[in-house]
Amino acid sequence: MNKQNRRNFLTSTAMATTGLMASALPIDTPKEKKQLLHHVFFWLKNPASQEDRDKLIAGLQTLKKIETVRRIHIGVPASTELRPVVEASYSVSELLFFDDLAGQKTYQDHPIHQQFVKDCSHLWEKVLVYDSMDV
Amino acid sequence: MNKQNRRNFLTSTAMATTGLMASALPIDTPKEKKQLLHHVFFWLKNPASQEDRDKLIAGLQTLKKIETVRRIHIGVPASTELRPVVEASYSVSELLFFDDLAGQKTYQDHPIHQQFVKDCSHLWEKVLVYDSMDV
Repeated sequence: MNKQNRRNFLTSTAMATTGLMASALPIDTPKEKKQLLHHVFFWLKNPASQEDRDKLIAGLQTLKKIETVRRIHIGVPASTELRPVVEASYSVSELLFFDDLAGQKTYQDHPIHQQFVKDCSHLWEKVLVYDSMDV
Repeated sequence: MNKQNRRNFLTSTAMATTGLMASALPIDTPKEKKQLLHHVFFWLKNPASQEDRDKLIAGLQTLKKIETVRRIHIGVPASTELRPVVEASYSVSELLFFDDLAGQKTYQDHPIHQQFVKDCSHLWEKVLVYDSMDV
């Protein structure tokens, strides 16, 4: 039983003990479980290079193997209306969900993450990180 | 039928044709269904005001009622390590998931969103939006 399943099991057990129906309190929704969101935006050195973009995306896809990564989204700018408040000059984005600060720290120090930085950091000229914790 | 529904329909049809059970291939996971992520960062005029922060958070919580919002995360800066690439000067963040561009447009124009802007825009001095589409 991995950590996530173990916690779900413990939570379910606790709910059963207190007589709450599991179906009435879904435990996997953001409401029930606060998460740490790690959103990274990359500006490529060669933004016109499809090859560089694909290399970076392939590198990012390795990060999902890190055991503390609960959810991953790899994206590119969406073609929404370009209002003045919209920042759409980046090339690629990566959104990771963690359970807590420790999970994010494990990720930062993880060999898979270190390898990604080693393999791909020459591709970007700027990176910007937003870490937020659910309220 | 919009593009996303059309694709899901075609996928379902293909699965039925090949005899695959829909339950074996859930279509609501990020892997199966690409989503539009709308991440907004707010810098308050009075960043030290807990009251203003709470007003903004309360306003953001009304947005989950908009029918095209699939998932919402409201956050504050996490206390991760303050590396030079980390932007942690914002006060509040809002991450919304939509199925597609149309869902995001419906949200922008929705009376609940308009009311939120009317009620809360005096609270912030800067807002920055990142819209990304899953690759």
